[in-house]
Amino acid sequence: MASTSTISVRKEALPGPLPLDSGRELAGVEIAFETYGELNEARENAILVFHALTGDQFVASEHPITGKPGWWERMVGPGKPLDTDRFQIICANVLGSCMGSTGPASAGEGGTPYAMQFPVITIRDMVRAQMRLLDVLGIETLHAVVGGSMGGMQALSCAANFPERTGRVLAIATTARHSAQNIAFHEVGRQAIMADPAWQGGAYYDGASPDKGLSVARMAAHITYLSEAGLTEKFGRRLQDRDAKSFGFDADFQVESYLRHQGISFTDRFDANSYLYITRAMDYFDLAEEHGGLLANAFSDASDTRFCLVSFDTDWLYTTADMREVVHALNAVAAPVSFVELSAPYGHDSFLLDVPALDRVVKGFIG
Amino acid sequence: MASTSTISVRKEALPGPLPLDSGRELAGVEIAFETYGELNEARENAILVFHALTGDQFVASEHPITGKPGWWERMVGPGKPLDTDRFQIICANVLGSCMGSTGPASAGEGGTPYAMQFPVITIRDMVRAQMRLLDVLGIETLHAVVGGSMGGMQALSCAANFPERTGRVLAIATTARHSAQNIAFHEVGRQAIMADPAWQGGAYYDGASPDKGLSVARMAAHITYLSEAGLTEKFGRRLQDRDAKSFGFDADFQVESYLRHQGISFTDRFDANSYLYITRAMDYFDLAEEHGGLLANAFSDASDTRFCLVSFDTDWLYTTADMREVVHALNAVAAPVSFVELSAPYGHDSFLLDVPALDRVVKGFIG
Repeated sequence: MASTSTISVRKEALPGPLPLDSGRELAGVEIAFETYGELNEARENAILVFHALTGDQFVASEHPITGKPGWWERMVGPGKPLDTDRFQIICANVLGSCMGSTGPASAGEGGTPYAMQFPVITIRDMVRAQMRLLDVLGIETLHAVVGGSMGGMQALSCAANFPERTGRVLAIATTARHSAQNIAFHEVGRQAIMADPAWQGGAYYDGASPDKGLSVARMAAHITYLSEAGLTEKFGRRLQDRDAKSFGFDADFQVESYLRHQGISFTDRFDANSYLYITRAMDYFDLAEEHGGLLANAFSDASDTRFCLVSFDTDWLYTTADMREVVHALNAVAAPVSFVELSAPYGHDSFLLDVPALDRVVKGFIG
Repeated sequence: MASTSTISVRKEALPGPLPLDSGRELAGVEIAFETYGELNEARENAILVFHALTGDQFVASEHPITGKPGWWERMVGPGKPLDTDRFQIICANVLGSCMGSTGPASAGEGGTPYAMQFPVITIRDMVRAQMRLLDVLGIETLHAVVGGSMGGMQALSCAANFPERTGRVLAIATTARHSAQNIAFHEVGRQAIMADPAWQGGAYYDGASPDKGLSVARMAAHITYLSEAGLTEKFGRRLQDRDAKSFGFDADFQVESYLRHQGISFTDRFDANSYLYITRAMDYFDLAEEHGGLLANAFSDASDTRFCLVSFDTDWLYTTADMREVVHALNAVAAPVSFVELSAPYGHDSFLLDVPALDRVVKGFIG
């Protein structure tokens, strides 16, 4: 990918070393972020949006590398469900990522990139770093935290670990615990990256990056973001720019061509080591385990927080059943929670796509 | 993998060149096979078992490379559902594979391996080659054809294209058409192999083989063979030989360790180019398309053939809904068909595992 040193992003240095769940601490952490809308005088109208695995802080503004619109423009803006006329929307690039926040590509001691010397981080570490960013920004409490997929994991972790800062929690298409199947898909992606000789044990920043491995990892993951029915409707067995099968190994089928494009274009904007670290953080995520093995314990201090949980009927990555477990835990601590399963054909990616019912749920809950 | 030239397998040369669906033809085809039980005097008690993508002819005898028992010992033997006291069970290594039948690793013109000069083949080509093998063996009609997964595709293709040779058809955990999602998973595997620099455009037979790429391909595919619930029951989030997470990139979780083992051990016994060609054949498989776009047409000459179709409730690779489409097509031509969805926790792999209900279905149908 293009080095983030060549792009200019807004960021803040966190004061003091950041303690990590691993027991290590990380000095000199910088967190890159974007804001949309104004903070009010009481400094209590901020909404923190957490991004997903391969997301970034450019939630409603142009991505500086790809030039594409923000990933949640449909949700964030004046008069939109996350209304920038009323709220300040903040989105920070997660710790370990590659769009300006400290991660494996950042310079460690001696000035060379951390690479695999970067500490293994957790979802809670990501949240901890963002709470420190809020300290720097002078924001004590949030009107709400909002996130889909890994963003939803951060939202739940934030409610569990920083309930006093979290007024409302909106968690979409997510889970409180990565399943064996979730871990398995991530492990395939990591092995694909590590199998690429260009990876060089992570120390590739002076030369070619392991784009082929990262591309395969992205392809495998991408299948899990879509529904079987959605793939059939979008592509079926239709051929790509040809009338008959080639009897060769070109991308005969549209779905092959689409996946190859998803894989290759991803490598322009993402760092392979960041992919390793962030998938690892997701696989380690088990909110119950962090709280004595009982998920309800995670929310014992969050009974004054209002929760809204949303799942999609075609999401087979983080299912409605996964979300129900969170609802049961919240019920056990009598936290106010609303839960809805929305019908949408796009699988896990539904939270990013044109699902008007989701807009209405978000607008209603944010208030 | 170990070259098949170093192992001795039973095989026959097919007379004359084999015509292929691509329009090409292939000369000098050899088909490796095993038989279990005796052919009767009338030569009409043979049952042809078709193997799956990574299967082979060693259905009920030791694999010459791995030393493991046959892959369907539970089903084939004296007194077993495919009873070798009454039937001769024949299983041939498919065209394009690597256990003795002609495939990309075989010597082409000039004596060097075909590699990617091997023609792209189809499921129907595999069946055609096996019918020629039966000609060589002096077997005109089969008591039954039986297969699971890709073996089931061959069984359906055999019924469609050689109905006069096929008395009964038992197709298990299969489909009449590869879906967009099926193609997508295979494409990830192919790209993983082709991304491995050791692949060298397929011309790796003189040097190191692309084991890393093939291993990643196998890992990705393996997830689709198991059910989510089965993975959770078998592995959950249990750690591998440790009490706590390592905060590193070793295989912390049992499911990671299992998948890595599946990937690596596969490369001992399978040729990467064969994996490319056979997955391509499966992706090309669309029995309706071969017969004017209407699946019922495929079976118009098979109305005297008896069919039995079996699906598993946890199989998300080839689902009960996929099998129902075949049943509808068979009903449309008034072919005698019985269909059962069995309950088993193992996902697609259920057809290979301990599912006593399947044994009973097979025994009853074979008669």
